[in-house]
Amino acid sequence: MQTMFRYNWLVREDWYRWCEDVSETELLRARTGGIGGILHTLFHMVDVEWSWIRALQGKPDFQESFNAYDSLAKVRELDRAFRMDVESFVLAWDNSMEHRPHLDPQPNGKVAVDTWGEIMRHVIAHHIHHAGQLSVWAREVGKKPVSANVIGRGLMEIAAE
Amino acid sequence: MQTMFRYNWLVREDWYRWCEDVSETELLRARTGGIGGILHTLFHMVDVEWSWIRALQGKPDFQESFNAYDSLAKVRELDRAFRMDVESFVLAWDNSMEHRPHLDPQPNGKVAVDTWGEIMRHVIAHHIHHAGQLSVWAREVGKKPVSANVIGRGLMEIAAE
Repeated sequence: MQTMFRYNWLVREDWYRWCEDVSETELLRARTGGIGGILHTLFHMVDVEWSWIRALQGKPDFQESFNAYDSLAKVRELDRAFRMDVESFVLAWDNSMEHRPHLDPQPNGKVAVDTWGEIMRHVIAHHIHHAGQLSVWAREVGKKPVSANVIGRGLMEIAAE
Repeated sequence: MQTMFRYNWLVREDWYRWCEDVSETELLRARTGGIGGILHTLFHMVDVEWSWIRALQGKPDFQESFNAYDSLAKVRELDRAFRMDVESFVLAWDNSMEHRPHLDPQPNGKVAVDTWGEIMRHVIAHHIHHAGQLSVWAREVGKKPVSANVIGRGLMEIAAE
């Protein structure tokens, strides 16, 4: 579980560095699909990751809109502020939490029940999904996207043979 | 590990059904980013998933090109043929395999060493990444993309309280 969160954090840092060479106009430009823009997507990745971890902890959610975080520096700052909360939860994860139920009241009055394990995987997949969208828009900008490779990042220790 | 493979297989089936209502012209149209087209991406997802599992097993890789699989029916048929191999490997996965080294000779003469666990996660993330690209192109076609949600699919059993 931790491996894929660490992967996503590395990929997000790679995207921030990628953004440094791109004009703010391009980062904010309205685009087809997903959240509709590069920087807005990075904000959304940070926001959603944190919000789900808060939900599992039974803590109140973040209600800010992208309008208050519409620059690379502001998104990075928000990321730094949220990362500590997320990291401490993720690094304390243990397998006994996998099948624990999480109740999520829906707008229609029903209550969705998911396991904590499903929610953690949802958070991981959500991030990768949106990074995939960024990779298409990167080509629209005319710039090579960040690598989506999990391998080659030294994320896991190799067993001695 | 198995949960995320099952998630990807469900999502892939959803994308096949999504393709049923879309013209072959749109499915084959050249697009910006990624592999450059919707059906070609689905072929690539099937191909890469299988190829990595074959590599872990030390078996020879598949060398066909998309030209021989350029219809929805052909990609689905290839998927059915490959799925059995992939499923039997994934469902037999156990945690003792996580840190086992896999040696991958590179074109430059070096040998990349990754753990089996990294490669399995790479295969999972690769699939989600490309599905994210499909979701952008879906909007170009003017059609709502397949849901990327992990939650709500009944992928894990909920513990009795």
